[in-house]
Amino acid sequence: MNIQYILELAGTCFFAVSGALVATRKSEQDWFGVTFIGFITAIGGGSLRDMLLGSYPLAWVENVYFLYAIFAGILMTRLFYRQIMKRSKERFIFDTLGIALFTILGTEKALDLGVNPVIAAIMGMLSAIMGGVIRDVLTNEIPVLFRKEVYASACLAGAALYLCLDYFDADKNYNYFFSASLIFGIRYAAVKFNLSLPKFKVRPVDS
Amino acid sequence: MNIQYILELAGTCFFAVSGALVATRKSEQDWFGVTFIGFITAIGGGSLRDMLLGSYPLAWVENVYFLYAIFAGILMTRLFYRQIMKRSKERFIFDTLGIALFTILGTEKALDLGVNPVIAAIMGMLSAIMGGVIRDVLTNEIPVLFRKEVYASACLAGAALYLCLDYFDADKNYNYFFSASLIFGIRYAAVKFNLSLPKFKVRPVDS
Amino acid sequence: MNIQYILELAGTCFFAVSGALVATRKSEQDWFGVTFIGFITAIGGGSLRDMLLGSYPLAWVENVYFLYAIFAGILMTRLFYRQIMKRSKERFIFDTLGIALFTILGTEKALDLGVNPVIAAIMGMLSAIMGGVIRDVLTNEIPVLFRKEVYASACLAGAALYLCLDYFDADKNYNYFFSASLIFGIRYAAVKFNLSLPKFKVRPVDS
Repeated sequence: MNIQYILELAGTCFFAVSGALVATRKSEQDWFGVTFIGFITAIGGGSLRDMLLGSYPLAWVENVYFLYAIFAGILMTRLFYRQIMKRSKERFIFDTLGIALFTILGTEKALDLGVNPVIAAIMGMLSAIMGGVIRDVLTNEIPVLFRKEVYASACLAGAALYLCLDYFDADKNYNYFFSASLIFGIRYAAVKFNLSLPKFKVRPVDS
Repeated sequence: MNIQYILELAGTCFFAVSGALVATRKSEQDWFGVTFIGFITAIGGGSLRDMLLGSYPLAWVENVYFLYAIFAGILMTRLFYRQIMKRSKERFIFDTLGIALFTILGTEKALDLGVNPVIAAIMGMLSAIMGGVIRDVLTNEIPVLFRKEVYASACLAGAALYLCLDYFDADKNYNYFFSASLIFGIRYAAVKFNLSLPKFKVRPVDS
Repeated sequence: MNIQYILELAGTCFFAVSGALVATRKSEQDWFGVTFIGFITAIGGGSLRDMLLGSYPLAWVENVYFLYAIFAGILMTRLFYRQIMKRSKERFIFDTLGIALFTILGTEKALDLGVNPVIAAIMGMLSAIMGGVIRDVLTNEIPVLFRKEVYASACLAGAALYLCLDYFDADKNYNYFFSASLIFGIRYAAVKFNLSLPKFKVRPVDS
């Protein structure tokens, strides 16, 4: 029962809440549909990371507690739906806590498996964002990635900080805290001040 | 040449028919497009299950007969297209036979690999529904999962019955028959009487 | 430093350019979004092939030079964007070079892993087309596969030629050249003369 395992369960639960909130906004969803979307959002990113790394068995396949964390998230969403939806800040917080935790845990896991640090940072980012991307693809939304202000790039920044601190042998718990806080902070500032990255294309071309 | 293998080939063929029927309704599809969609529908769910479980090699990669089962399904669709399309019941039957067989075979396979029974039931459901979900995503449809009455939940019910009967050491062939029949029966009743699960969200919230 | 490795890096770079070109046409993309879509287009097909074959580690996870090839492609796209977009032929050429190379390399890799030649040809085709398909799904486009004239079928034809020449022990470099040229030639002719495969459904049915 280490800190890493607790954070992973917490991140899974946050993602399930975030998925269920997106699903309930689509009015026709039944209980099963909402649970399924919460499940996919929660396990999608980590499963993809592990399948890309060839690291088996997947955490949720081996350990049924991840499933319970998801069910807890869905139940919480149902019970506190009105309270959460009234406070727009809290909706955004579940997703942001999820991506902050998953980026750091994903980067660490990839690093432990011996891949190049640059690839480890990408794996951390993919664990964090791909659950939401798969959720958006399945519900026919434009993926969050291409809508939101500074989303996946905040994950990359946090992963870079994690790698730096890890390189200098920083204490693991402090490293978790500072790297995840950076991701949370960037996302919070981006939403609050409506920041975005510079556009790629300067002028349109008549083709 | 055991019963399990024959059922798996049959399920693959049914899914190929079901995929080809969906593809032909989109009028612009050429022969290749229809075959490709039939192929993806047939192998998508089982491949995802095996990739999540890390169970290699995939059945259709190792055994080329699965490919022949798909081609047989596509050819049947072409030859009997008018007859099938005139009878709306028969269209629905191919997909339902496919999900009934794949749920049971997928649950059994996951169980044989030693995963928790709850996870095995989810794996059975994913084998059954994800081929159709991938097909719908590729053809820009809203996934079947979120449109249809009692679809994936019928698979979970069948998987649960399979696990119960298996727990009490029921004969495998009877177990296949009863569990698959339950899935088929629930889906049939749901379509016939237009049943659906209770909605998740009771009242909308002004956000 | 063999020819196969250089061709793989080149194909990865071509796909990154092709992905970035598609992404920039969507005006709201920032630098990160364009890079991400280029990345997914470049690694999607090969990653899926290796995950289906259970062949780990994935090339880009093990070897960071694939990432540099992608960054080089993105940078080239930015620097020469106006020049490329003015010449519609050059836009089409990056994607076509990518699919030609990836089909042959994917078929060869699957064959080396001992799968049936028919399955190897399918694996070659999937490596070539699935990066673009995933790109289109993420950007909410109808997959290229179902829009374009003779696309994936050109890959299958090239893979078939590769398998034939390989069966007769042709020199590998000549085989690369002729098989890739066949794919390039078919695609070029299909676009130039607007060719397409025969439609699957002859007459509509009132259902």
